Amino acid sequence: MHSVSLNKAYRLLNHGPVVLISARHHGKQNIMAAAWNMPLDFDPPKITIVIDKSAYTRELLEASGTFSLSVPCVAQIDIVRKVGTISGRDLKDTDKFERYGLETFPAKDIDTPLLKGCVAWLECKLIPEPHIQNTYDLFIAEVVAAYADERVFTDGHWHFEGHDDLRTIHHIAGGAFFTTGAALKSAF
Amino acid sequence: MHSVSLNKAYRLLNHGPVVLISARHHGKQNIMAAAWNMPLDFDPPKITIVIDKSAYTRELLEASGTFSLSVPCVAQIDIVRKVGTISGRDLKDTDKFERYGLETFPAKDIDTPLLKGCVAWLECKLIPEPHIQNTYDLFIAEVVAAYADERVFTDGHWHFEGHDDLRTIHHIAGGAFFTTGAALKSAF
Repeated sequence: MHSVSLNKAYRLLNHGPVVLISARHHGKQNIMAAAWNMPLDFDPPKITIVIDKSAYTRELLEASGTFSLSVPCVAQIDIVRKVGTISGRDLKDTDKFERYGLETFPAKDIDTPLLKGCVAWLECKLIPEPHIQNTYDLFIAEVVAAYADERVFTDGHWHFEGHDDLRTIHHIAGGAFFTTGAALKSAF
Repeated sequence: MHSVSLNKAYRLLNHGPVVLISARHHGKQNIMAAAWNMPLDFDPPKITIVIDKSAYTRELLEASGTFSLSVPCVAQIDIVRKVGTISGRDLKDTDKFERYGLETFPAKDIDTPLLKGCVAWLECKLIPEPHIQNTYDLFIAEVVAAYADERVFTDGHWHFEGHDDLRTIHHIAGGAFFTTGAALKSAF
């Protein structure tokens, strides 16, 4: 795991992988899956992400003003599906991390857990935009720190060859995913 | 090519492919590439997309209130790169369609060209949100019609097996792409 320059952080999301959003507030924490995410600006990097009104993670990140994105890989598809289908609000006396045995490490610049075993992480500070949050469930944030697994991302580039289990994944619907496939370069 | 139910239109974009945006106004038309796009709602379907202030396509779609997304495939990566790096504003007495010999067909519900050879298409009506358009270059639209190439998308599902040239593509940076890879299903 190594730091990613902030001006290259967009490349962690540019190809459209599913992400896990995690947030913590007053000792409560949660993690959820979100396919609807994308970069919004290069430098300083911003991202935007859709989070349903029913999501417990939304309540936590609106209260704390911070959240993180962990970019999961092929080896984690069952985890992604699990945390994406059960609400943390419905768990009594526990949270998803404990329930599913998810190991985390602390973010550097914000107070939120990051999921181990992922291949990239982005620490985010919410940029409040109440109208689009309320109307479209759309959240905007600045990325304040980013890291990646150096086996598959270095110098601003993904390189998954030889690491099929660490390929990022793209969600379609109902637990069906595509892996990130072969690299191609245009002739221009 | 066949119609996609509007309540399944989000699945054309859910896995994060790059798209081509096209728009027409008063006889002028343009097409550009946009990696930063995502679904925003299921039914009626909405999408959101980032379009830089310098983009000629933005001027056209702001004037007409409509635009289309064409989802390109592996066979088209050079086209995607070409229309993504040259501004239609800089072309004299021609447009990108003519310059690059791009064949189009007309949209059904709006007046905008759709690119032949792509594997999915979405017709969109802009939902004006001036604050986020001006502040973040972020545009929101309702999808009013959608179709797909039946060789790779039917009954709400992508199936690229046996059609590697028709796989969708994910842009990273500078003409580097990933193809949409293998299909995986979580055990849950």
